[in-house]
Amino acid sequence: MTEQLSAVAAFLRRHDNYDILTHDYPDGDTLGSAFALCLVLQQMGKHARVITTYLPDDFLFLQKDVEKQDFVAQTVVSVDVADTKLLGSNRAVYEGKIDLCIDHHMTNKVMVPLRLVDGGAAANCEILYKLFQHMEISWTRAIANCLYTGISTDTGCFRYTNTTAETLRIAADIMDIGCDVAYINKVMFETKSKKRIALEREIYDTMEYCLDGRCAIIAVTLEIQRRVGVRDGELEGLASIPRQIEGVDVGITMREKTEGEFKVSVRTNGSVSASQICAELGGGGHSAAAGCTVRGTLEQAKETLKATAARYL
Amino acid sequence: MTEQLSAVAAFLRRHDNYDILTHDYPDGDTLGSAFALCLVLQQMGKHARVITTYLPDDFLFLQKDVEKQDFVAQTVVSVDVADTKLLGSNRAVYEGKIDLCIDHHMTNKVMVPLRLVDGGAAANCEILYKLFQHMEISWTRAIANCLYTGISTDTGCFRYTNTTAETLRIAADIMDIGCDVAYINKVMFETKSKKRIALEREIYDTMEYCLDGRCAIIAVTLEIQRRVGVRDGELEGLASIPRQIEGVDVGITMREKTEGEFKVSVRTNGSVSASQICAELGGGGHSAAAGCTVRGTLEQAKETLKATAARYL
Repeated sequence: MTEQLSAVAAFLRRHDNYDILTHDYPDGDTLGSAFALCLVLQQMGKHARVITTYLPDDFLFLQKDVEKQDFVAQTVVSVDVADTKLLGSNRAVYEGKIDLCIDHHMTNKVMVPLRLVDGGAAANCEILYKLFQHMEISWTRAIANCLYTGISTDTGCFRYTNTTAETLRIAADIMDIGCDVAYINKVMFETKSKKRIALEREIYDTMEYCLDGRCAIIAVTLEIQRRVGVRDGELEGLASIPRQIEGVDVGITMREKTEGEFKVSVRTNGSVSASQICAELGGGGHSAAAGCTVRGTLEQAKETLKATAARYL
Repeated sequence: MTEQLSAVAAFLRRHDNYDILTHDYPDGDTLGSAFALCLVLQQMGKHARVITTYLPDDFLFLQKDVEKQDFVAQTVVSVDVADTKLLGSNRAVYEGKIDLCIDHHMTNKVMVPLRLVDGGAAANCEILYKLFQHMEISWTRAIANCLYTGISTDTGCFRYTNTTAETLRIAADIMDIGCDVAYINKVMFETKSKKRIALEREIYDTMEYCLDGRCAIIAVTLEIQRRVGVRDGELEGLASIPRQIEGVDVGITMREKTEGEFKVSVRTNGSVSASQICAELGGGGHSAAAGCTVRGTLEQAKETLKATAARYL
């Protein structure tokens, strides 16, 4: 890896006028990676900016120390982008123009002259930490905040199974550099919007146990979405609710997209294959997390899902 | 600290027939500390057992490798016990008989001939990790599991403000030794009982915002407790629900103890003093977390709380 780090460090020193690309529906890791790299490049006297489809309010603090610069882009770097498809509305502009790709997805498909990809890193920000250490940058609180945000959000604050001993040691180093851990943890892991509370309340009321309590189903109907007034991005993380209930092997989350059409997320606890259940219904995914689309009334769609899940329990 | 560690190590080698005391309403840190120490003492050829008021199901795995031994106790060690009052029903037997106290509470009041107290440790299991490293024990997965359980539960899986860089490094070392991180995290942080889900659903229905949305109140009435069938220990962690809502400075959790008597938890986000609010009502606590008792009907008690909170907002 040291050789790769040297190559990327040399590349960054040699070029200028950087556009740094994030993936669509940007999360803490792609934004933390992008703003950290932008800060480091500006510290090196380069021009750099972050390109993102949007910047959620919770992440506004990441750009606090970034200088707004006007320039014509000459170099394009993507961070935490596994596939150019994931660039969203920026894809048309940047497809085929990426010079350097820094990513932690084993399945990375971005075609570039230079890449720094480590599928073993829990977060892309771990790779950037190693790169910055290798480059012997001047660490600042702002850079540390970006990296801590990426690492903590991609690991559920060190709770998910992707967390390694190295993840914890890098986070410790970043805390030693000095970063606003208490603020970041509070915003990322301890705060729920009033709308989210209202949504969870409605969803709890739809919770249904079946198949001897081994399956739990929640349904986010159009009526609930209208009543609470939620948009797409505000429905994240709901799929973990039925799965985390004691004794539940299959957790199903149904979301009504249009009248009579449900987008379904299936989460299982290892013993049952989510991808097999979804494949039967024309979908797919991984063994613990998969998805499919089911049509019909709410009751019809539920019966279809129950009957399919029953064959695997 | 090295001198203290040497003294404690020498003490443990010199004595035998250990009763290891945990605090009442035992949590992951007191139990993890006790079973880890028990395993280490048994490894040294000593007799040892853990004394606890009860052992919650979720923590049964901690005693898996502990040998059941019959002996007359000669040496008493308390772990994670800040005050002998906290021994619960074991206090009468052990008061005044503790030989060694290992704890991480700055306010420790246990009177003993030998103590190992570090108020800077996020979890008591951090201190035991240092002790065991100093003693050069033979590490096993069972011992590592005990320590990881204590450290992760006392820090909310590294999310609470007590987490330090050292906490993360110790956890990394324990992961390197080898422990069942995925299992422990799942049981401790990703699992809710069906009863808990039912309780949260009922409680969400009682959520009331007031004082321009800066105050949120939830009420666990006797009726709800009866309907869901919850016991004392199953109401833990509810106080964090109103506090974590965006824009809420004062989160109030009311729990009806008997008809017309409410045990109240007040949680604030720093800017408002919870202890001042509770002191007005005859209670007390810390600036971010305090408690008091309020009498009256649910509506009367709520009005009293709102009026008091209003004076501090």
